[in-house]
Amino acid sequence: MNIQVEPNIEAAASERDMANAIRALTMDAVQNANSGHPGMPMGMADVATVLFNRFIKIDPAKSDWPDRDRFVLSAGHGSMLQYAIHHLIGYPDMPIEELKRFRQLGSRTAGHPEYGHALGIETTTGPLGQGLATAVGMAIAERMMAARFGPKLVDHHTYVIAGDGCLQEGISHEAIDLAGHLNLGKLIVLWDDNRISIDGPTSLSTSMSQPARFKAAGWEVRIVDGHDTSDIAQAIEKARKSRKPSLIACRTVIGRGAPNMEGSEKIHGAPLGADEISATRANISWADESFVIPENVACAWRSIAIRGRRARSAWQARLGSSRRRKGFEAAIAGGLPRNIGRNFSAFRKRHVEEATEVATRKASEMVLGVINAATKLTVGGSADLTHSNLTVTEGLGSVAPRHFKGRYIHYGIREHGMAAAMNGMALHGGVIPYGGTFLVFSDYARGAMRLSALMEQRVIYVMTHDSIGLGEDGPTHQPVEHLAMLRATPNLNVFRPADIIETAEAWELALASEKTPSVLVLSRQGLPMLREAHTRENRSTRGAYILREAMGERDVTLIATGSEVEIAKAAADKLMTESSVRAAIVSMPCWELFEKQSEDHRRSVLGNAPRIAIEAAARLGWDRWTGDNGAFIGMSSFGASAPADDLYKHFGITADAVCSKARDLLRGAAS
Amino acid sequence: MNIQVEPNIEAAASERDMANAIRALTMDAVQNANSGHPGMPMGMADVATVLFNRFIKIDPAKSDWPDRDRFVLSAGHGSMLQYAIHHLIGYPDMPIEELKRFRQLGSRTAGHPEYGHALGIETTTGPLGQGLATAVGMAIAERMMAARFGPKLVDHHTYVIAGDGCLQEGISHEAIDLAGHLNLGKLIVLWDDNRISIDGPTSLSTSMSQPARFKAAGWEVRIVDGHDTSDIAQAIEKARKSRKPSLIACRTVIGRGAPNMEGSEKIHGAPLGADEISATRANISWADESFVIPENVACAWRSIAIRGRRARSAWQARLGSSRRRKGFEAAIAGGLPRNIGRNFSAFRKRHVEEATEVATRKASEMVLGVINAATKLTVGGSADLTHSNLTVTEGLGSVAPRHFKGRYIHYGIREHGMAAAMNGMALHGGVIPYGGTFLVFSDYARGAMRLSALMEQRVIYVMTHDSIGLGEDGPTHQPVEHLAMLRATPNLNVFRPADIIETAEAWELALASEKTPSVLVLSRQGLPMLREAHTRENRSTRGAYILREAMGERDVTLIATGSEVEIAKAAADKLMTESSVRAAIVSMPCWELFEKQSEDHRRSVLGNAPRIAIEAAARLGWDRWTGDNGAFIGMSSFGASAPADDLYKHFGITADAVCSKARDLLRGAAS
Repeated sequence: MNIQVEPNIEAAASERDMANAIRALTMDAVQNANSGHPGMPMGMADVATVLFNRFIKIDPAKSDWPDRDRFVLSAGHGSMLQYAIHHLIGYPDMPIEELKRFRQLGSRTAGHPEYGHALGIETTTGPLGQGLATAVGMAIAERMMAARFGPKLVDHHTYVIAGDGCLQEGISHEAIDLAGHLNLGKLIVLWDDNRISIDGPTSLSTSMSQPARFKAAGWEVRIVDGHDTSDIAQAIEKARKSRKPSLIACRTVIGRGAPNMEGSEKIHGAPLGADEISATRANISWADESFVIPENVACAWRSIAIRGRRARSAWQARLGSSRRRKGFEAAIAGGLPRNIGRNFSAFRKRHVEEATEVATRKASEMVLGVINAATKLTVGGSADLTHSNLTVTEGLGSVAPRHFKGRYIHYGIREHGMAAAMNGMALHGGVIPYGGTFLVFSDYARGAMRLSALMEQRVIYVMTHDSIGLGEDGPTHQPVEHLAMLRATPNLNVFRPADIIETAEAWELALASEKTPSVLVLSRQGLPMLREAHTRENRSTRGAYILREAMGERDVTLIATGSEVEIAKAAADKLMTESSVRAAIVSMPCWELFEKQSEDHRRSVLGNAPRIAIEAAARLGWDRWTGDNGAFIGMSSFGASAPADDLYKHFGITADAVCSKARDLLRGAAS
Repeated sequence: MNIQVEPNIEAAASERDMANAIRALTMDAVQNANSGHPGMPMGMADVATVLFNRFIKIDPAKSDWPDRDRFVLSAGHGSMLQYAIHHLIGYPDMPIEELKRFRQLGSRTAGHPEYGHALGIETTTGPLGQGLATAVGMAIAERMMAARFGPKLVDHHTYVIAGDGCLQEGISHEAIDLAGHLNLGKLIVLWDDNRISIDGPTSLSTSMSQPARFKAAGWEVRIVDGHDTSDIAQAIEKARKSRKPSLIACRTVIGRGAPNMEGSEKIHGAPLGADEISATRANISWADESFVIPENVACAWRSIAIRGRRARSAWQARLGSSRRRKGFEAAIAGGLPRNIGRNFSAFRKRHVEEATEVATRKASEMVLGVINAATKLTVGGSADLTHSNLTVTEGLGSVAPRHFKGRYIHYGIREHGMAAAMNGMALHGGVIPYGGTFLVFSDYARGAMRLSALMEQRVIYVMTHDSIGLGEDGPTHQPVEHLAMLRATPNLNVFRPADIIETAEAWELALASEKTPSVLVLSRQGLPMLREAHTRENRSTRGAYILREAMGERDVTLIATGSEVEIAKAAADKLMTESSVRAAIVSMPCWELFEKQSEDHRRSVLGNAPRIAIEAAARLGWDRWTGDNGAFIGMSSFGASAPADDLYKHFGITADAVCSKARDLLRGAAS
């Protein structure tokens, strides 16, 4: 078959020269920083040059253009590959000075590519496999947007460079299975098959046939010489025509060009040293000084941007004349309908008045009914627990191979892959992803959840079955430490609502939180209505509030979250009737938001009386709110398998236990 | 080929009858509990019956016999399969009453199989994929023990029943790649290929060819009708002869036998109801009442134990006459050499005297030199970061395909798989596993680390690069919330040593801790010697201690861990010289051990003066030790990419910041 692959005709320099520019900049920057990973950028320089020179559709002058191709450097330690290319192509924020400040404080050239640090970085990578799994989400979002707005507005590729590490990590399995299932033909993964890992040859730890593995997952696979530019180009060309996702196994030599170090793990993660850099310069006939690029080479790279600019102009014209323009722009902006606040308020008012008593997972489903009707942006899903997480609402429609008009994704039993895909969807834009699993399986999704927070993405995790309250499934399914784990994570809002009203409030806050992902921590078991009257104000906004003040001066303050607020209320009633002890009840659905309040406000909520916190989870962290004279009622071990009521009694999380503790504290304070 | 497969000749009942006994007990127990998962046990009843009736080598009367076959129910929600079999075969702790108490508090029949709750449960399962990955560790340990003690003492199989969920989870990829690479021929996985997941048909979310996938990983694959006993038997027989690990894809009908529900996701996780139970009894011609097993069927099952008893007797005789008996028994007992305490003490003495100043990861390597020379039980490894984690010592030798005499495992870039394999090795017995990765990648290993703690296994995690102190790799590699996450986990000791002496102390405590896994949290960067004099006592035993008392009454107490103890010390010096403030320094290498001390002891260490905690991590949890009048110096966001010293200054974790905070506190206290 005769493949037409045209190299960039404006380039005077060869692609070999262009690739050597990546090698030279990489060596120089890593040497200058005395830190970094030269092996991958030097090994994959030829592949990346061909990809960018002949195929990729980006415009550095407008790097967030919605229909651009997405490029994901999943092997993020090879960040100099991306920075070198960004400099060479002419991203305005990537002058040579930034490359000289590689890995320094405040530079755009962090050790690993960081989303938001420099234009054109589509996602943060570094933890291996994340880039690949995030790219799957981008490719899903592309198909969904194309289904909604048509191919004239949405038609782009997602390219990934992945290393051996990315393909060994478990998350890669979840990602490629999902991508193969959904026939994501516009996803193209270039695997840096250099057969070297940090410990030595990959044969130390794997005998996997990656081509066979990807074929088993429904991918097209090609194998190329990663230093033969026409071989590479033909494979990418064919992959672009495939209706399946493509793996291109690029047989490369790590550190290619360094005469004494190439092909060895020694060049993976350390500077080459002055001598080897000299030898490499000689070997690749690179005469220029450090950080200097010959004009013809620079020219060749910059001309790539011209192709991109033209493509963007053409797209802009199509958008301008499209009747779908408004809808498309609104989707990309990611805003919510103006009246959604009213819908939330009406929902809350109705349910306070009806005193609706449901599990908060059920409440979440009811709120989602309102949300999913009000906006087309939300895309739901679950890691195969749809009818437990209650994440689907009527008429959403399922996403399926060749059917991307639906808004509900069956992610399969793949919590990590789901979280990473949601990151990719949020980064892609045009959709607001939420996805469900059991709270305990945040363990499986942690790696990607951390990136939601680090990248400041509006990803919403619906995590049900949130404590021993789930009952018989036992300790493997009962979260204990997970609230602490999530609360300790920077830039992550953890909501544990106590009733349907707080659940609606949490959803409203999560949707409005454009730079902070949220975790909604929801009960399996039914919960009573706690709110006594409707307020227009979303009372969860400040993180905690006085659900019921004591009658008269407080003797004790009971602080609780989620299903334990009910226990606090029962305890407060008991304390009054049995011991005339005046207890205030504070509901604290979101620590992070409470932490942001002024100290005065926090003190006004927490009060000066002794405090008891009640939460069916680990104590870690609670001392901040209970203080030196406070107490905690919760879990100090793993859970157990039994009906929920038996477990609450067994672990001593009861109104009686709270009362007894309150009396102890008051005796202590009096004595 | 003519395969000789002899059914158990003492069995009067057919294997179909035997399998129906599993079905009947499952229906009854789930119905009685009004909770549980009947679909898998009913679907896999025929497969399990053939496996146990014809092959498995166990002795219920001596369920921890070292050379028994290991049976792992990776699809742990199908726990009734295991409980039914345990009852039928005659495990002494599994009378019918336990089945009637399925999923009740204190029963042996928890919702998912829990290690330690009942004899013969080899590992806790439930979080999907864990059983499979744990089994890989068991099979590795079997090969290692066989290499050391010979096939007469060690020669057993590891059988796994896995579901679709187990094979969709990412951890399965890490596990099967490692197993295929190491040619674990005695590992046999029976996949319940019922094509049903919780959301519906598996075709909702996967198009993976599992047979092709396992072949790509170097496994032998067979496909059988999971309700045809001779087909199943022939496949197991062939798998037992394979030098590769085997997948047997068992084509089954979920809930087989229930006429109106079989083959549907509805039977996965809910009781059948009285009507469907009646219909099923009629359908499978099962006349007996609830929880009653006909005598001929009971007899058939119990005769399996006879075969097991004979096998064990023969093995016991071989052990008795073996010259390796003593060594073997010592390995299984898992004890450490008596003199190892002296070795640790001598090591500490020498390094205090030499004032050795090294990174704690380097210190760990030096301690490992002592440990690995003193005992043959330790088995090291790393998730492809050997020369960063510094987990290998001279002469350990690598484990490789067909070479199991080594004691070091290249786990590959597979943190989760490594953690689960270590669980399996510890559960198998005869080895003490430790393995390394970066602390931040505890995110990837969380699922299995939680099980180390829940199962009370001596697994030792060596987690280096423990803070922003790792420098340029940036926020994706810098742990912030991980200490809180690990400390919140029940039954997990988290050690963050401050110098080589505390590192040796931590290792000594971790090795001695037979029922609690340990995480050693170690620095990348060099650290000074903090201990001023050698003590015979391991000062880390109580979790925290006064490293240096204030000269005179304390004005302030500085509490720190790991690399921040150095900062506390510098701050204390500065406070004295610049402001005549008397600061005590408390080093707190292990919260969990400190928490276990009496309140009096804790108070004597922490003192009554205002306290400042210093740790380059999240604050969450520290308020417990600093109290209402204390302060915390640490991280309140993600890290950044820069040299470590720049980062400590940037994030304000410096002696100056501590001094300034101390002066603030003292002014506050005075005013």
